[in-house]
Amino acid sequence: METAAVAEDRSRELEERIAVEPDAFRILTGDRPTGPLHLGHYFGTLANRVRLQRAGVELFVLVADYQVLTDRDVADHLREHVEGLVADYLAAGIDPSTATIFRHSAVPALNQLMLPFLSLVSIAELNRNPTVKDEIAAARQTSVSGLMFTYPVHQAADILFCKANLVPVGRDQLPHQEITRTIARRFNERYAPVFPVPDALLSAAPGLLGTDGRKMSKSRGNAIALSAGPDETARLIRRAVTDDDRHITYAPDTRPEVSNLVLIAALCQGRDPHDVAAEIGDGGAAALKKVVTDSVNDFLRPIRARRAELAADRTYLGGVLAEGNERANTVADRTLEEVRAAMAS
Amino acid sequence: METAAVAEDRSRELEERIAVEPDAFRILTGDRPTGPLHLGHYFGTLANRVRLQRAGVELFVLVADYQVLTDRDVADHLREHVEGLVADYLAAGIDPSTATIFRHSAVPALNQLMLPFLSLVSIAELNRNPTVKDEIAAARQTSVSGLMFTYPVHQAADILFCKANLVPVGRDQLPHQEITRTIARRFNERYAPVFPVPDALLSAAPGLLGTDGRKMSKSRGNAIALSAGPDETARLIRRAVTDDDRHITYAPDTRPEVSNLVLIAALCQGRDPHDVAAEIGDGGAAALKKVVTDSVNDFLRPIRARRAELAADRTYLGGVLAEGNERANTVADRTLEEVRAAMAS
Repeated sequence: METAAVAEDRSRELEERIAVEPDAFRILTGDRPTGPLHLGHYFGTLANRVRLQRAGVELFVLVADYQVLTDRDVADHLREHVEGLVADYLAAGIDPSTATIFRHSAVPALNQLMLPFLSLVSIAELNRNPTVKDEIAAARQTSVSGLMFTYPVHQAADILFCKANLVPVGRDQLPHQEITRTIARRFNERYAPVFPVPDALLSAAPGLLGTDGRKMSKSRGNAIALSAGPDETARLIRRAVTDDDRHITYAPDTRPEVSNLVLIAALCQGRDPHDVAAEIGDGGAAALKKVVTDSVNDFLRPIRARRAELAADRTYLGGVLAEGNERANTVADRTLEEVRAAMAS
Repeated sequence: METAAVAEDRSRELEERIAVEPDAFRILTGDRPTGPLHLGHYFGTLANRVRLQRAGVELFVLVADYQVLTDRDVADHLREHVEGLVADYLAAGIDPSTATIFRHSAVPALNQLMLPFLSLVSIAELNRNPTVKDEIAAARQTSVSGLMFTYPVHQAADILFCKANLVPVGRDQLPHQEITRTIARRFNERYAPVFPVPDALLSAAPGLLGTDGRKMSKSRGNAIALSAGPDETARLIRRAVTDDDRHITYAPDTRPEVSNLVLIAALCQGRDPHDVAAEIGDGGAAALKKVVTDSVNDFLRPIRARRAELAADRTYLGGVLAEGNERANTVADRTLEEVRAAMAS
């Protein structure tokens, strides 16, 4: 397995190749439809996808509705979550005329790849998944479901069905990504060169924290949703955790909460966080929070306006998904045919 | 897990219920299309399926083409093997007007059940599969593929997609079958009562050996195929292993090879093997082999004639499969809809 340092070097090389030859790349990316996307998603992955698409890279965006079916709370609001996710994507700037946005459950041929792919990895390899490894080490085998165990193989099917050759990932996803590469390589060696061996594109995105200084997450109530109104945003930031030092600085290691707020404002303004902090100077938490609130609201204003329009037009959102589903099915059926032909010859 | 003794008691009860109310049962059964079916298949399972169908039980017969795709040697002759299998089924007496004979690969919704089903079992449970357990105990984790590991879950999808409530099995398949029951039970408890909890129907069929006294298997060249001609049959039986005692008896424990030949003749004649042996008396191996050859050829004559007709009519065989695939898809789509509705409410 390659180390993060190697992945970083390769990602820099990839960015250079993307700049020169963007249409040599197809990206698979996506989200589980568990609720509204927030600023953490935006600066963590959405902005990167939009950037890559604008550079000329083709996007396949998976709405992973099938994976969440096993989660009762989410399944109850699935239609709403799926539509909301598509609205978030388009409001953030993903262009559905060249991106294929599709629901996992609408592409049966994708799941048909599971069987050959499962034959190409051993349980020793699947046991190396860090989550699985931890549970097994703690002798909690009964808490690892077959679904969790085979998750990297499902992910390989998600990526390889459309022959994506580029997958934007966070550092923690590198081991999963490695199984996809192994499966592609083995399939090609054993049968015929059907699949690209996809590269992981490590994103340089900063990890945004929630307003309480912990991981930004809808369920913690510390996340600023793209769809939140200006008042809700102001309220959330007013409650944000800070510290007693009135002099505002950007020092993530020693002042994580204050620095995170500075970073949010800086990202929204497209500026360096040190400059933003210097400008606030001795204004204290109140001045900081005002800057953050205004920056976020200014930044999100056009996104929110576009999102409100989209959310009101469910027919349009449904049409985007239907078209994406159709394209994904065409691609998946073709890949499955190739896979079967390769295996039977 | 229930013991074989419990399964035997239950199987007797089930046979009584089948006699009274056959249309309360749907059977899932099937084969991997790896080559021609032989006498071992016939007396081991085929005859039992035909008996149950004639009693009024509905059959779903799975041609497990998807599972063999990973086997190069088989995949090369897949079309031929699949057609041959269907010809064997019909020649043996399975009636396609009420049985649904279908190819696994033609029913995508069946595979869609894998994801929720995988979420319902833990890896601790999958590790209990005897084959997997042996490999892990021998520290050969790398030799257990993800496909082998998840095999009992694939089997659950095969059985439950059509809501079969009865599965004819050999004793060695009881542990796999238990995972299907677990998955059905958990799905029903967690979501909604969608699935029957299928019963294993242990077959009373005797285990036939090959002409060399080992397990009957095409690859060992010791199997009498349903499609073999009378001369090939005579040749195979002439080469059969016997012993030096000219007095023929039926004593499987002490004279396995001779007793197996006696059993083949007895099954073909529909008589008790002790009577068959007594009739041959002191005739020795030559007389025994003549009786066996004549019995097999007499027994297989109508099956072979019908099979030759069928094999010549590939359009008809294709039509039988197409119709079966269509029925299986209708059933699978309906089940998948129910599964999704149950999970999302």
